[in-house]
Amino acid sequence: MKACGLIVEYNPFHNGHVHHMKQSRQESGADCLIAVMSGPFLQRGEPAIMDKFHRTKAALAEGVDIVLELPYLYAVQGSDWFAEGAVRTLYQSGVSSICFGSESGNSRAFTDGYAMFKKNEATYRSVLKHSLNAGAAFPDASQLAFQHIGLNGGNMDLEQPNNILGFSYVRTIMDNNLPITPLAIKRKKSHYHDQTMVGSIASATSIRNKLLQDRSVSEAIADTLPEETIRQLFAYLEKTGSWHTWEDYFHLVHYRVMTMTIAELAAIHGVDEGLEYRIKRTARVASSFYDWIQRIKTKRYTWTRLQRMFVHILTNTTKTDMHRVKQLREVPYVRILGMTKMGQAYLNRQKKRMDVPLISKLGKTMDPLLSIEEKVSDAYYSMLPADKWEKGHQQELQPPIIMD
Amino acid sequence: MKACGLIVEYNPFHNGHVHHMKQSRQESGADCLIAVMSGPFLQRGEPAIMDKFHRTKAALAEGVDIVLELPYLYAVQGSDWFAEGAVRTLYQSGVSSICFGSESGNSRAFTDGYAMFKKNEATYRSVLKHSLNAGAAFPDASQLAFQHIGLNGGNMDLEQPNNILGFSYVRTIMDNNLPITPLAIKRKKSHYHDQTMVGSIASATSIRNKLLQDRSVSEAIADTLPEETIRQLFAYLEKTGSWHTWEDYFHLVHYRVMTMTIAELAAIHGVDEGLEYRIKRTARVASSFYDWIQRIKTKRYTWTRLQRMFVHILTNTTKTDMHRVKQLREVPYVRILGMTKMGQAYLNRQKKRMDVPLISKLGKTMDPLLSIEEKVSDAYYSMLPADKWEKGHQQELQPPIIMD
Repeated sequence: MKACGLIVEYNPFHNGHVHHMKQSRQESGADCLIAVMSGPFLQRGEPAIMDKFHRTKAALAEGVDIVLELPYLYAVQGSDWFAEGAVRTLYQSGVSSICFGSESGNSRAFTDGYAMFKKNEATYRSVLKHSLNAGAAFPDASQLAFQHIGLNGGNMDLEQPNNILGFSYVRTIMDNNLPITPLAIKRKKSHYHDQTMVGSIASATSIRNKLLQDRSVSEAIADTLPEETIRQLFAYLEKTGSWHTWEDYFHLVHYRVMTMTIAELAAIHGVDEGLEYRIKRTARVASSFYDWIQRIKTKRYTWTRLQRMFVHILTNTTKTDMHRVKQLREVPYVRILGMTKMGQAYLNRQKKRMDVPLISKLGKTMDPLLSIEEKVSDAYYSMLPADKWEKGHQQELQPPIIMD
Repeated sequence: MKACGLIVEYNPFHNGHVHHMKQSRQESGADCLIAVMSGPFLQRGEPAIMDKFHRTKAALAEGVDIVLELPYLYAVQGSDWFAEGAVRTLYQSGVSSICFGSESGNSRAFTDGYAMFKKNEATYRSVLKHSLNAGAAFPDASQLAFQHIGLNGGNMDLEQPNNILGFSYVRTIMDNNLPITPLAIKRKKSHYHDQTMVGSIASATSIRNKLLQDRSVSEAIADTLPEETIRQLFAYLEKTGSWHTWEDYFHLVHYRVMTMTIAELAAIHGVDEGLEYRIKRTARVASSFYDWIQRIKTKRYTWTRLQRMFVHILTNTTKTDMHRVKQLREVPYVRILGMTKMGQAYLNRQKKRMDVPLISKLGKTMDPLLSIEEKVSDAYYSMLPADKWEKGHQQELQPPIIMD
């Protein structure tokens, strides 16, 4: 059986994902679609609108065969390390191709781009370093360095965040000589950053913002979402009373910062270059999470980077935790969240070929990295009232969701 | 000018305190009454109903001349270390006597009791150790050991928590040969543990419970409180929207425990003998703070001890912090919260004789122990909404309250 990998957040699963899924199945010729999905917190450093189990159900209902969880220590990271975790998880799952969205849909542009990058990598690194030292934010510095070696515009415009992710997947595959074909799928949707609704081709960001703003599914939104996503959104709201936003965690992360010493704060992953002082100082006057980031932000720190840092503070993720995972040559395990019957049949065969354990639920004795996952999951549910938080955790102890 | 010391919590300042104050002034013959008061958290391991500044105002209005703050690392502790901090703070303040409540009002019983204790200290310690090893809680074990050496009943019944505190003060004074006369003042009130109201002689505990239960000052309560206490209670409620109870901190301390590793939890002061596992396990199912303690409690751990431990978890107070303060031969400083004009005149003269700094407000560069005070104060206010928490902190930066 031939499998194809998708790298996703499904926050929430929308019509753009349906399109991408169908195109991926067609272009890869795969029987089995495997999605590796961020868990409670997303790459951009935000809590997912609803938990990973509800997002898994929506995806399975719409045609994904297997949903795997990208471990937290890969998920809430810059694109390189995010790609490392996602691609290696898919590699363990035995996919022969990985599909990713791009503006052009031209796979060749990415592999050619990689060749050009390798040839000029030293120049790229030196320009990058120079810009970073001059105080630029990483994305801007990287952008400039790519341009410098001729990687700009044309078929692989690296100003598009999706193309940057796609390029990171291609780099991970090719740097490691993995037997996986990267396939760029042409996006049908509006731009990633577009915050306004444009009928059924709305961006993930605009859908999420509209949902969280309205706390309900308006007609315009319903147009952009498969039925099962709407059902899961309401099921989650009914169970917990909430969809998750950063502001719901503000009082927790604020309390946490106020009771940390400067040294403890500096030990958290992402709190670098003296940011600990800036965080402490601004904490005194921050009136909301949004306001807090505004006060910390400078040219050097992107909003995304600061949001990620706050996720690490909230979840108490240290530089030591990060150092440990960076030592690994392979992802520590593959965690399965849900699958169809077909996906189950596929995994039953594939698991014998994996170099790492296939984890179906959290248990009593666990890999230290799984303990981190449990802590992160607990942090995610901690903004809910006491009678709700344990329900989320219970699902972590159950076998994966299986959909007929 | 002759000064007398009181050791208090004023949670809130009630008619029993007025009585004790007048008796103390009379029996000590002092011109100046100096109260050393617990700050945000109390000896029994609870948040004070309103903040220390409002409690200070109530006390000054009713006749106390100076209110000093007992540092947190002494305040939320067993009676021996609590007494160490309180008596030494008063010693630095130059008091010639310390008045404390007792059932009998017989000071001689305490000094004779001390003599008997010193003679039999080795036996006391061996009986105490034996009971502790057998799994008894400290108060029970200590009780038994006192009985064993003949310190029970009569004029100094050590089953009364107030007498235990009084005896601890006497021990601290006499062990250190401090030039201070201990004066036992006969209590007029109902028993410390009594939770029901008995007119104007209600216990502090019953007043507090009734206030927190009603969230208002009923007629029965008004009877037991001076006018200024009532005014301060309402002023605080108006400013912050809250009186503080443990349940208000439940979601914060729960979030904190859920995101700590076992090793981090074990590093907290008071988390001993493998309690970290018990705390973690019960956290999953606790539905309230009360419920959580119920689930942790065994014969070995008293409610008070567990509450204190939770205050240390909430405030992130470590065994290392505690070790540091235990090394000191003297209290690190004397912090003044408020004073009358007369108190101010007294302190102006006395401060030249102090061996430690007299601190009138928190500032930018601080003793590490003052940083702990600031953290504790921030933790106290952290259950308030964002627009309120900074107001409390602002007061920490102001000069002491001065009352005409």
